[in-house]
Amino acid sequence: MEDKMNIEFPESYPMAGGDGAHSYAQNSKYQRGYVEAAKEMIMEAIVKKFDIKTLSTPLNSIFVADLGCSTGPNTFLAVQNIVDAIELKYQSEDYCTREIPEFQVFFNDHASNDFNTLFKSFPPKRNYLAAGVPGSFYGRLFPKATIHIFHSSNSLNWLSKVPNEITNKTSPAWNKGRIHYTNAKKEVVEAYATQYAMGMESFLSARGEELVVGGMMVLLIAAVPDVILSSDFTICTHLELLESCLTDMEKMGLVSEAKLDSINLPLYFPSLKELMAVFERNRRFSIESIQELSLQDKQVSPQTLTLTLRAGLEGVFEKHFGNDIMDEVFDRYSKKVASTPIYLNLGHENQKTLLLSVLLKCKPND
Amino acid sequence: MEDKMNIEFPESYPMAGGDGAHSYAQNSKYQRGYVEAAKEMIMEAIVKKFDIKTLSTPLNSIFVADLGCSTGPNTFLAVQNIVDAIELKYQSEDYCTREIPEFQVFFNDHASNDFNTLFKSFPPKRNYLAAGVPGSFYGRLFPKATIHIFHSSNSLNWLSKVPNEITNKTSPAWNKGRIHYTNAKKEVVEAYATQYAMGMESFLSARGEELVVGGMMVLLIAAVPDVILSSDFTICTHLELLESCLTDMEKMGLVSEAKLDSINLPLYFPSLKELMAVFERNRRFSIESIQELSLQDKQVSPQTLTLTLRAGLEGVFEKHFGNDIMDEVFDRYSKKVASTPIYLNLGHENQKTLLLSVLLKCKPND
Repeated sequence: MEDKMNIEFPESYPMAGGDGAHSYAQNSKYQRGYVEAAKEMIMEAIVKKFDIKTLSTPLNSIFVADLGCSTGPNTFLAVQNIVDAIELKYQSEDYCTREIPEFQVFFNDHASNDFNTLFKSFPPKRNYLAAGVPGSFYGRLFPKATIHIFHSSNSLNWLSKVPNEITNKTSPAWNKGRIHYTNAKKEVVEAYATQYAMGMESFLSARGEELVVGGMMVLLIAAVPDVILSSDFTICTHLELLESCLTDMEKMGLVSEAKLDSINLPLYFPSLKELMAVFERNRRFSIESIQELSLQDKQVSPQTLTLTLRAGLEGVFEKHFGNDIMDEVFDRYSKKVASTPIYLNLGHENQKTLLLSVLLKCKPND
Repeated sequence: MEDKMNIEFPESYPMAGGDGAHSYAQNSKYQRGYVEAAKEMIMEAIVKKFDIKTLSTPLNSIFVADLGCSTGPNTFLAVQNIVDAIELKYQSEDYCTREIPEFQVFFNDHASNDFNTLFKSFPPKRNYLAAGVPGSFYGRLFPKATIHIFHSSNSLNWLSKVPNEITNKTSPAWNKGRIHYTNAKKEVVEAYATQYAMGMESFLSARGEELVVGGMMVLLIAAVPDVILSSDFTICTHLELLESCLTDMEKMGLVSEAKLDSINLPLYFPSLKELMAVFERNRRFSIESIQELSLQDKQVSPQTLTLTLRAGLEGVFEKHFGNDIMDEVFDRYSKKVASTPIYLNLGHENQKTLLLSVLLKCKPND
């Protein structure tokens, strides 16, 4: 255990902390839509697939963990939904003669996440006990076979780190002038894909140890189709738009060439095929379902989109460029996105980002 | 469970956060001495009294919790000692054929505690998994029968709140012009004693639910003898000294009378007799031992003493008086304590503060 727990993940990308105008807490309505869209699916999954009778440990208490919880409030919605679904199951089924177990919910994120804000915003009325677990979910976080349900929303698109080779000037994978792999050269795309696959392998291996047999994992992951046409746009299109703002600023001398060359976003949006391959390679989990979620709000304003993107990415950008240029970068993005209204229509036929919900179940060890 | 978890404790008294010059993290060497003095006792208690074979739950993992952990670093010393002792026990005894379980350590303090600082200072190399649990230990924090060992050092001297009546001008227990119960009128002393007894009852009742049968609780509590002579001095003497600084400042017009009248420290130091009565009233625990600890460093400087007191009390004072007078209050205290050198000699024969370590074990439910 010691070795696994001592793995150092040098990079972490916390969402903007506190509860100010640019905080994640105030600017995560888009992600909230995602959690809300998954609500029914999760309810149904628990009712149909979470088999309390066959779980490998006695259920005096049920342990639920949200991985990549940030500072709230979406995490509270997500875990409340899970706790309520399990309570309902206890009340409605024939083992309801047993006392309903107590719930402990673990809120996990990087140690650099603003846990103080998270803890102060815990719902005062709640039917679960709560704990925070700092650390990277690409490593071990919980003792063996102690968690019954894992949940993660919008977090597994964050890589454990930027692939080394893409910042190395002497490597064929050097990602000069670019901040992401979208439409980048083959070596860059491959480096990102490899990093993602390795990270997911670590993630699934750690969770496989921590889940009780029969325990479940609900993962909400943004993905892209296997084939993308040039007329399509996805979440990656927005990263390219953001990149173009930085390129413009570099041309104007507001950002140095070296600074632009050395930043790369640690974000990855797998294709459906890649994602399936990752889950199939890991033998501890059975794939119970993969569904595409649909957001309720199909139309978004440039302001909201900008604030959402900013709350998620400002941490990475600010560390690299300093605080001075943040307003300008995101003002430029806001103008660019406003000038292409189809980008603001999440229901547009060319909008191809796939919001997937993946339901996995932990099998007995071979 | 819901009711118990919804109890609201309106007051919390976090130690000074961050890691600056006046932070608890930088000014808790005195408390560290306490943890160090208890080290051997805890080791021995685990070897002799923590009976792994008879614990009521299967031990795939061991759950340890430190209650009132503050921002570190003392809490890390304390829990490491416990984890190491249990590991040693596994390695040295005949059930060592079983795999050593994994450890999960819960660090608990009020939600207003600076958990961000705590989480960032976790020891990078450690043989346990870690979580933070925000909330008052006078209420429920963990699911039923899930914790194997509780530890608490220097925390149970903090009351859950200042007794209502002592701040009520119309009550016979109004503690006018005073900040504590030391040498105060009978009604004030009684109000504090009642608040303490009620708090300890809540504490023991919550822990009785959360501990597994056979689980242990190690409580380090500062206490005073049943009889105190006028030539004796204790930790309460220091609170009187601090009070005299505020009285002086009130006379000089630096602090208003109303402000002085309305502050009371939520600290209590029980007599040995009171403490025994509290434990004997609760029937879930057997008292395995009560020992007096002896600090290694008997001599302390006025600066260290002042910084220690300040890290602990500044939170309460600052909230009440504002930040402006903090330096002056503690400068005055520093001078007063320097002018009475026996106060700086923790080994002096009139120094009567008792540093107790109490070892309790959880019995089966009646």
